[in-house]
Amino acid sequence: MRIEDAPGRSIQDDYPDDVSHCYGCGRLNPEGLRIESRWDGDDTVCVFTPRACHTAVPGYVYGGLIASLIDCHATGTAAAAASRARGLEPPSNTLPRFVTASLHIDFLRPTPLGVALEVRARAEEMTKRKVVVSVTLSAGGVPCARGRVVAVEMPASMTRSSADGG
Amino acid sequence: MRIEDAPGRSIQDDYPDDVSHCYGCGRLNPEGLRIESRWDGDDTVCVFTPRACHTAVPGYVYGGLIASLIDCHATGTAAAAASRARGLEPPSNTLPRFVTASLHIDFLRPTPLGVALEVRARAEEMTKRKVVVSVTLSAGGVPCARGRVVAVEMPASMTRSSADGG
Repeated sequence: MRIEDAPGRSIQDDYPDDVSHCYGCGRLNPEGLRIESRWDGDDTVCVFTPRACHTAVPGYVYGGLIASLIDCHATGTAAAAASRARGLEPPSNTLPRFVTASLHIDFLRPTPLGVALEVRARAEEMTKRKVVVSVTLSAGGVPCARGRVVAVEMPASMTRSSADGG
Repeated sequence: MRIEDAPGRSIQDDYPDDVSHCYGCGRLNPEGLRIESRWDGDDTVCVFTPRACHTAVPGYVYGGLIASLIDCHATGTAAAAASRARGLEPPSNTLPRFVTASLHIDFLRPTPLGVALEVRARAEEMTKRKVVVSVTLSAGGVPCARGRVVAVEMPASMTRSSADGG
């Protein structure tokens, strides 16, 4: 079964447990944002409604949250796109984990607070261990920020089981 | 009195109240990170120790927090540098407020969780309403991320008093 055939299941649901604690997208981080990304054709989409505390100046969303949404949605997109390109069907909890090598964001206009934001991404380039992802964050259909993320497959040395020697 | 002569007072302490609610650096946001920036010669420095929940994968700091620290510290730096360049001594609560036009971050290596991070910045270029800020985030003296932020003076239309017509 392909990811897009299971609308209830997010890309992040397929991360292995030991790399699912991210503040932005980890399903095992009870204090985090727990963003969820899903395929939509060749794009991926994440919908997230900021909380009132996620203010920049009153009425607008804080740039650090916008960066977080773009970053985590892009690494999820990279993981899912790499998995798809490798011809791997995504069985539960075995998606590769990508981390961010570089993050670029152009803030096009202030992002209004109090509405759902759509973060839409696409894997634009892919090499063996690197995926370049373009991202647009919109509010009410109006693009507010554009991002470009270079994501690389996480080295095994970053996992706790490796660090612990386990 | 210059800002650097008052070590107890941060750059953010001099933002006007109505633009001091930012999740990253607003002293009036009780749920936020409340980062503080101070002059150190021609640099500015922010020291911040992430909480345990600010995890990327276990043992390392979440990239969205790194982006938040770089973003807010850079806009604070832009505000303070612009104020200094204009020959304004910073009386309480009248610092200009800058917002981010673009944010670029290169993640040089994983940032360890559990230690204080130093975010050091400098205003590299300045025009009438724009400041370009370079930023280095280090852990234990080792640079983990480098940033470049283009900050622009916030348009008056973004303030609540303006939005409210007040």
